[in-house]
Amino acid sequence: MRYDVAVIGTGPAGVSAAITSKIRNKSVILLGSRSLSPKISKAHRIDNYPGLPAISGSDLAKALKAHLDEVGVGITEKQVGSVYAMGEYFGLQCGEEMLEATTVIVASGVVQAKSLEGEDKFLGRGVSYCATCDARLYKGRPVAVLGYSADSVNEAQFLSEIVDSVLYFPMNGEEPEESENLKVVREKPLAIVGDNKVAAVRTDSGEYNIDCVFILRDAVMPDKLIPGVETDGAHIVVDNMMRTNLDGLFACGDIAGKPYQYIKAAGQGNIAALSAITYLNDIKKKEV
Amino acid sequence: MRYDVAVIGTGPAGVSAAITSKIRNKSVILLGSRSLSPKISKAHRIDNYPGLPAISGSDLAKALKAHLDEVGVGITEKQVGSVYAMGEYFGLQCGEEMLEATTVIVASGVVQAKSLEGEDKFLGRGVSYCATCDARLYKGRPVAVLGYSADSVNEAQFLSEIVDSVLYFPMNGEEPEESENLKVVREKPLAIVGDNKVAAVRTDSGEYNIDCVFILRDAVMPDKLIPGVETDGAHIVVDNMMRTNLDGLFACGDIAGKPYQYIKAAGQGNIAALSAITYLNDIKKKEV
Repeated sequence: MRYDVAVIGTGPAGVSAAITSKIRNKSVILLGSRSLSPKISKAHRIDNYPGLPAISGSDLAKALKAHLDEVGVGITEKQVGSVYAMGEYFGLQCGEEMLEATTVIVASGVVQAKSLEGEDKFLGRGVSYCATCDARLYKGRPVAVLGYSADSVNEAQFLSEIVDSVLYFPMNGEEPEESENLKVVREKPLAIVGDNKVAAVRTDSGEYNIDCVFILRDAVMPDKLIPGVETDGAHIVVDNMMRTNLDGLFACGDIAGKPYQYIKAAGQGNIAALSAITYLNDIKKKEV
Repeated sequence: MRYDVAVIGTGPAGVSAAITSKIRNKSVILLGSRSLSPKISKAHRIDNYPGLPAISGSDLAKALKAHLDEVGVGITEKQVGSVYAMGEYFGLQCGEEMLEATTVIVASGVVQAKSLEGEDKFLGRGVSYCATCDARLYKGRPVAVLGYSADSVNEAQFLSEIVDSVLYFPMNGEEPEESENLKVVREKPLAIVGDNKVAAVRTDSGEYNIDCVFILRDAVMPDKLIPGVETDGAHIVVDNMMRTNLDGLFACGDIAGKPYQYIKAAGQGNIAALSAITYLNDIKKKEV
């Protein structure tokens, strides 16, 4: 099946884009977490989402989830590793599966952290952003996990069932329970080193030999997620209609630039969806 | 008093801009109708305002109004005739009163109708957009009213108490009760004619001598409202941060371009407010 619209991300931008696409009768796949964006749920109180005064983050997440239910959009819990422009459609690599969609709306949030030294250099040669995708490649071998996201602890535990050993670097405070092949290292990673491929993680107090470093952030740098997309730092460059430099690919919310605000994200999600629909209609006209 | 932020318009864009400005501790004046935008209240059902599924237009208007109350923003029912860039601040002409604000956020909606023949030519010389502002200028003289907006009937009745006589052309279906000096003309106006100033309205079946034509629409063409602002047809040209070509003046919602959507307008109102706040902070830094 090829979807009309694939929406990546379940913050207010992605939810808004999915709702508008759906009520315009497009086939939609919404990819992200069923608990929506962790950034929403963690917000203590949001004062400027017009119509929902003084709402807590968890209540806003509930309201958005209820809205998705109301219009009949489900959430598919898959992590998109890469988006490839194939000409007439996009391929979305999710682990070993490849999804297809005519248009893609990227609403996956913004990466706050800078790249680590060596991260860019070794991407695909021992640096991975997705445990689910790449665990099997390192079966029986030693790996490290830099845990930035809320899910990192679970991902590390999953990895430890497959690989030889996991060194876990807690980057957001949370730590997994240690086991025979899962150890926590409370040191600050400084660089990923090696020759042609990753050989070790260097920290402020030592060096650890491993074959792969899983860097688990809530979001991936957009130019790594989507080869060829025009970016400005951590942001995808968009015009007023949320169009990117790639035909059929749109971006909205934090990844499309500041300000990082819930209502701005929801508004841009709506624009992105309507631009995607215009694009789909234009294709249809050409085919006739 | 000079306000930090003047917001023109009480649709979702203006309401959103006012809320964000207020919670950032700026002094705000919100100019528009206490019943909010007639476009909202008339909507039967809105399906894509995320978080408020399947809401009626009147319920969305109530929710926005409640949010304004919650954060303590009142609505000032004044019609802005013109906005003048004065260098360090803006002057907002409301009838005989001139308000002052350091920044202006224009969220006054989009004019759907085209200009009438002669309308542009005679603006200020017998063509007026504001009965409250200009009624006294035509005391004891004959005028015409082209009633496009929901308030036009009331405005015409007010005019009939001051001027010699009112010919009312119903452009939106609604008609005032006729009286000795208020007559309804059910003909289609084609042009406003005269030499140096307005002399008559020409319709599809005749010509009516009057001294002024009050054209009462819900919104005014932006380049007439704000001399010097860059426009593209009925829209004000904005960048991604809702900045216009005039420093300190921002636009959002329908007047900033398509799509015409509630959630898009609310999102842009938020961006406009944050851009206005950045502008205010930059000025402060320069003053130090």
